Amino acid sequence: MKYIPQSQNKIGKTMIQVFITGGTFDKEYNFITGELYFRDTHLKEMFGLGRCTIDIDIKTLMMVDSLEMDDEDRNIIVHNCRKSKSDQILITHGTDRMVETAKILAAANIEGKTIVLTGAMIPYAFGSSSDGFFNLGSAMAFVQTLPPGVYIVMNGRYFDWDNVKKNRRTGNFEEMQFLD
Amino acid sequence: MKYIPQSQNKIGKTMIQVFITGGTFDKEYNFITGELYFRDTHLKEMFGLGRCTIDIDIKTLMMVDSLEMDDEDRNIIVHNCRKSKSDQILITHGTDRMVETAKILAAANIEGKTIVLTGAMIPYAFGSSSDGFFNLGSAMAFVQTLPPGVYIVMNGRYFDWDNVKKNRRTGNFEEMQFLD
Amino acid sequence: MKYIPQSQNKIGKTMIQVFITGGTFDKEYNFITGELYFRDTHLKEMFGLGRCTIDIDIKTLMMVDSLEMDDEDRNIIVHNCRKSKSDQILITHGTDRMVETAKILAAANIEGKTIVLTGAMIPYAFGSSSDGFFNLGSAMAFVQTLPPGVYIVMNGRYFDWDNVKKNRRTGNFEEMQFLD
Amino acid sequence: MKYIPQSQNKIGKTMIQVFITGGTFDKEYNFITGELYFRDTHLKEMFGLGRCTIDIDIKTLMMVDSLEMDDEDRNIIVHNCRKSKSDQILITHGTDRMVETAKILAAANIEGKTIVLTGAMIPYAFGSSSDGFFNLGSAMAFVQTLPPGVYIVMNGRYFDWDNVKKNRRTGNFEEMQFLD
Repeated sequence: MKYIPQSQNKIGKTMIQVFITGGTFDKEYNFITGELYFRDTHLKEMFGLGRCTIDIDIKTLMMVDSLEMDDEDRNIIVHNCRKSKSDQILITHGTDRMVETAKILAAANIEGKTIVLTGAMIPYAFGSSSDGFFNLGSAMAFVQTLPPGVYIVMNGRYFDWDNVKKNRRTGNFEEMQFLD
Repeated sequence: MKYIPQSQNKIGKTMIQVFITGGTFDKEYNFITGELYFRDTHLKEMFGLGRCTIDIDIKTLMMVDSLEMDDEDRNIIVHNCRKSKSDQILITHGTDRMVETAKILAAANIEGKTIVLTGAMIPYAFGSSSDGFFNLGSAMAFVQTLPPGVYIVMNGRYFDWDNVKKNRRTGNFEEMQFLD
Repeated sequence: MKYIPQSQNKIGKTMIQVFITGGTFDKEYNFITGELYFRDTHLKEMFGLGRCTIDIDIKTLMMVDSLEMDDEDRNIIVHNCRKSKSDQILITHGTDRMVETAKILAAANIEGKTIVLTGAMIPYAFGSSSDGFFNLGSAMAFVQTLPPGVYIVMNGRYFDWDNVKKNRRTGNFEEMQFLD
Repeated sequence: MKYIPQSQNKIGKTMIQVFITGGTFDKEYNFITGELYFRDTHLKEMFGLGRCTIDIDIKTLMMVDSLEMDDEDRNIIVHNCRKSKSDQILITHGTDRMVETAKILAAANIEGKTIVLTGAMIPYAFGSSSDGFFNLGSAMAFVQTLPPGVYIVMNGRYFDWDNVKKNRRTGNFEEMQFLD
């Protein structure tokens, strides 16, 4: 039996829920202090440039560096995923603690929803060197096709929440074990 | 039963085959004549910027505007899809005749392979206004997750080869009928 | 005796007049037809990104490809240069007929004004590959420092109106003769 | 008497000397640490994109943040300006201590040379948001037209070394006094 992605299911078609939490993805360069900071999200502009015609509901939950995310922030994410009417949820998130948030979302046991976390190693505002636009395209596709569960989407791939770690040296995500 | 995408299947894991045929995706601006033309593909650079860690084999089949694609060109595409050792094939293609090539690929009845065609409305070389990088991310994800068949990936979505047309007014791809 | 650029002359300090006429500088890519066209000028945005703090008055005279510029267009340019209250005038212009317009401006014998024509080989809208932002920076500097007269500013240089031609093969501007 | 810029003087024509010292201009984003750092200079690429046809000699003296520049670094800059065969010298420099270096260069009393310092508020590597390309165009033009002396070129303007300060709040350079 083929898994029928919900957004292609014409009866009761729903939109994709996008939750913004911050992360490198949405950072800007402050030319006075030389530091990175958050202003507004770029997600809406990015979906426009991607000429995306899917029905999307974007909601900014917070704008934080994932290193500074605390339990309350994660509760807000879990709460919003649970109460969203969509079964396809895309979350932008800092890469440093993306795996931790994925675990907490999995532990929350939210049934029947495909939840995809993605991010960027280089801010979208830094132009064509950023991986953000590519990752957003991947995440949009995976959230429409993967079965319910919690996933991380980076480096053109998806990873199950319980079998992924960020390689701190390369910045890439990897499976934890390569057992067959 | 869950469909197991091949690239995540550890036993007999294979790479993704990328075929380049040209299209707006890879066009450049000729500053002498003011016209668009083809030089080299940008795909390799794009996978690098996307920090893509999937095993990919890129092969340029041709560099043409799809409006100028003829039967011989399409035969080359079909032949290469058939003989590729990969079961996941991503083809970059001009958007004007993408649907026609998809139909020919479907008619060729290539068994057991997921074939995804993607392109861009604005050349990648034109910087951040291009939809190419987003589409490439989407296409990479869909080719790993969709069941065998022929698909078009544009506008953050996938379309079955037999239910899609390009809207010449908006430049977007649409399903031909919205019957439930 | 040192020539005192007007914009640095504190008594009776005036602004720089910027006239927009179109040219490759301000062209956009039409993703439906695949052709280049004019929409709005990018000049205001560019002065903002250049963090330019000089008092500037921007006026769009026309938005045309210089190959399609006729006598009436040139009369409009001459008329506006003559009546502008500023003695420092920067004109954005297509490169193909820039030399012709410079000659007509010189023949108009507008006294006491430094008039600089500049343009781009690649549209500003095509991102970081464009020479437009660099040329605008050069033109802004030359218009403040050169003595009254008519000049073309391209390739990091200025050229006297009566000793310059565009090399159709390379796209670069050159002096017509290199006699000492 | 009109001041004849040297690069336009056909007898004994010399090239422009470009000295690189670092600064925000040439900073990169380290996607592992999230910090800015120096790798290679972008100047050569920038002159290429600017389609600059002037004879230029580029030399990297150092790659430092101007806040970390010490007396020895400034001695190296003075020494190289003095011994350069060119009478037109462009120096890329961090903006925070640009005025201090300009003062030291002026005190060194290097005769017959036009020395222009320029920089950027946003790294060139951050794409089209950077002011670097515009500033480079301006600096190239001013160094060819200003009489011998030491100048700062930012915000589309030039400033005499002894009448300029950086406004720490806005990031813009300003004259210290607006006396007539």
